[in-house]
Amino acid sequence: MARTLIIIRLELDHKQASFGDVAAAVSGAGGDITSIDVISSAKGSSVRDITVDTGDREETDFVKALRKLHGVRLINVSDRTFLMHLGGKITIEPTMPIRNRDDLSQVYTPGVAKVCTAIHESPNKAFSLTIKRNTVAVITDGTAVLGLGDIGPYAAAPVMEGKAMLFKQLAGVDAFPLCLDTSDTEEIIRTIKAVSPIFGGINLEDISSPRCFEIEQRLAEELDIPVFHDDQHGTAVVVIAGLLNALKVVGKSISEVRVVVSGVGAAGVSICKMLLAAGVTKLAPVDKAGAIVRGGTYAYPMWQWLAEQPQVESKTGSLQDILPGADVFIGVSTGNLLRGEHLRSMNEQPIVFALANPQPEVDPEVGLTHAAVFATGRSDYPNQINNVLVFPGVFRGALDCRARVVNEAMKLAAAEAIASAVTDEERNEQYIIPSIFNDQVVPLVRKAVIEAAIATGVARRVPPDFR
Amino acid sequence: MARTLIIIRLELDHKQASFGDVAAAVSGAGGDITSIDVISSAKGSSVRDITVDTGDREETDFVKALRKLHGVRLINVSDRTFLMHLGGKITIEPTMPIRNRDDLSQVYTPGVAKVCTAIHESPNKAFSLTIKRNTVAVITDGTAVLGLGDIGPYAAAPVMEGKAMLFKQLAGVDAFPLCLDTSDTEEIIRTIKAVSPIFGGINLEDISSPRCFEIEQRLAEELDIPVFHDDQHGTAVVVIAGLLNALKVVGKSISEVRVVVSGVGAAGVSICKMLLAAGVTKLAPVDKAGAIVRGGTYAYPMWQWLAEQPQVESKTGSLQDILPGADVFIGVSTGNLLRGEHLRSMNEQPIVFALANPQPEVDPEVGLTHAAVFATGRSDYPNQINNVLVFPGVFRGALDCRARVVNEAMKLAAAEAIASAVTDEERNEQYIIPSIFNDQVVPLVRKAVIEAAIATGVARRVPPDFR
Repeated sequence: MARTLIIIRLELDHKQASFGDVAAAVSGAGGDITSIDVISSAKGSSVRDITVDTGDREETDFVKALRKLHGVRLINVSDRTFLMHLGGKITIEPTMPIRNRDDLSQVYTPGVAKVCTAIHESPNKAFSLTIKRNTVAVITDGTAVLGLGDIGPYAAAPVMEGKAMLFKQLAGVDAFPLCLDTSDTEEIIRTIKAVSPIFGGINLEDISSPRCFEIEQRLAEELDIPVFHDDQHGTAVVVIAGLLNALKVVGKSISEVRVVVSGVGAAGVSICKMLLAAGVTKLAPVDKAGAIVRGGTYAYPMWQWLAEQPQVESKTGSLQDILPGADVFIGVSTGNLLRGEHLRSMNEQPIVFALANPQPEVDPEVGLTHAAVFATGRSDYPNQINNVLVFPGVFRGALDCRARVVNEAMKLAAAEAIASAVTDEERNEQYIIPSIFNDQVVPLVRKAVIEAAIATGVARRVPPDFR
Repeated sequence: MARTLIIIRLELDHKQASFGDVAAAVSGAGGDITSIDVISSAKGSSVRDITVDTGDREETDFVKALRKLHGVRLINVSDRTFLMHLGGKITIEPTMPIRNRDDLSQVYTPGVAKVCTAIHESPNKAFSLTIKRNTVAVITDGTAVLGLGDIGPYAAAPVMEGKAMLFKQLAGVDAFPLCLDTSDTEEIIRTIKAVSPIFGGINLEDISSPRCFEIEQRLAEELDIPVFHDDQHGTAVVVIAGLLNALKVVGKSISEVRVVVSGVGAAGVSICKMLLAAGVTKLAPVDKAGAIVRGGTYAYPMWQWLAEQPQVESKTGSLQDILPGADVFIGVSTGNLLRGEHLRSMNEQPIVFALANPQPEVDPEVGLTHAAVFATGRSDYPNQINNVLVFPGVFRGALDCRARVVNEAMKLAAAEAIASAVTDEERNEQYIIPSIFNDQVVPLVRKAVIEAAIATGVARRVPPDFR
């Protein structure tokens, strides 16, 4: 459980109250003062910031306790999360200082002109002589942010900045957030194409379904740099990684298991496609309106595509109708769809990935009781299926080999690489997926992605360590 | 004169040649070895990078001299400018490390959700809780880059990256380059509007005239963050700054001088507008087709606007017809338009700013002989008129007070601030403008811009040091 810290700025009138009174009030309300900063101090008064570990108490408990004190005026209460966001979470730095006129004449006019001319004559040099080599755009329109929905481009920015932090820290990738003030499919495509020259890759994020499919597909066709919609493919890759290890734990083969996928939106479609690429032969995709069945007719092109796949089952019905006899349940839908009796209807040694956030498709305590392997998207239970395991290594690899696209082979290779970060000795029903702080993951994913890109002919460069 | 350094990678066969032979060959060709790196070393051979100061000799002189040596194989020759550009010139860094799961839950899911929600409820908080507070886009379409012309978005990137470096080093502003793969006016406007939410300001750069006018004007009207086309206004501000000091040197008043502006494109139009705002009463703008005259009819809206201003003269003719009797010549046109006889036709104590690059409107030696104050855009003569003096401080001020626009009052205040960085004691005909490395310039410009923004009602925040 994360500690909750709040920072209280208060003014103390020294004639009426001492700091001891403040400390006693905070302790009395169940908190612990972990640091104090004196912001200003005058003869009869001072302003201080006190950091309080709230334990299991609410912020308002402390506000009430302090308001009771005479001579103490509360100026402001901030929590640590907000403080960490002040001014944003990324910064842009020069790679070298401009120390003098000579430096300036090399990195700017007039010297820069010969670098511009070199790129003009040979556009491929943009990959070596500009930030394109290592820079990815993290792009959203703010229509499907976390569990918050359509909160728009301004409110989506903190998520995109957080992602940019992870890109850099985990994989050394420079990532810049772009939050688009339009949700029109054509305009999003046009805008991203227009800004693409400076970027070596495009990470699409939190764009609502079904627009996200067309946006990604069109961009992948029309741009010559990788386009990766993380909500679809990041999730699918880490699900496949977890599934590969879960199948080893229960001793089943991917070609023989029957898999039910609940929720056929952005993530669900990509999961279904990867399951088929990975060798699943019995697949039942189920959405709110029921199972998507072989031979059916559907308005969404992606559902129609599924209905045309020979591995997709033809049994109609609701999730509860379809689930009995399944070996694997993968939920990317909504919370509390299933109870223990439903899991008991599955095949023996069932694998259950209940990934809806924040409330999984089945209560975790129930899931842990009834499933042979149980995974969620949450950090407070074992087996957190988190796409932070995917995008840093995938883009590290794609940038290093200047891949034109991220194709199915590269994604499957990434999934296998993530799975391989859990050794045979380590792997058990509580540990099918590595931690995002496991520093083997990015190098393994990078290597697998580059190998797959070279093998499928989409790499424009063989990195030195692959020669 | 900047030193020219080249880096030569070579392989030395120790049986046939020693490093002494290499050093002798370089010296013999007129160069100086300034550093050596051993890249790899085997039993009978080694690979080394030698950095050579070429003095006044050509790269090929050294290549030829080294090729004559037995046992020396040239692998590669790079010049320092290219080496400085390898991998690009800016990097994106997290403002804090993500050390553990607790940190992650604050800067990313799930904690980030409450920050998103706060911005969704109160969009103004984007200015405090995201990088919008300090981030500017440097945007070009690559149609008018330096003196190179329409070289496109890929080749323009090194200039934009250089500008981003200057923004950070000189003013602490985070700047990100966007190079647009379109030169259509409407699409540029749409694209910039679409990507605007993450930015606190837009610096337009190297967009060709006359499209740049409409693009800037429309964006200024339709966005609520400052939009500043540096080629227009950066140049105009620094020209006015230099002119204010030059007038003091010759003891003339801005309201009485007659000013001829040669070249009425992006920079020239903005210079004319600022001259009028600064109090010039006698103005003759001249383009290739001749003087733009009061009462005339012109296709370009900006020229038509000039023709309607009472301070604009009505005399027609070429630059040579118009120049006699002028107190001030400001050239932002093309090289070698004027000779000594033309400058002699000007009023006594003439001020001549010949800013065409790389070749000024008049030969610098001629200008220095005939003008009382002579300035160019070049660093190898006194009085370099360089817009690097302008944009860092203007955006520092605009961001700090959350200005909605950069208006004429703010630009004029910036010009006066730059001029004021040269003290009365320092000011003379060889020193009318401060160095870009003068660390007083940005604070002075910032202060002036903020004061003007507050006075004209376009500031949304009063910075703490102004309260």
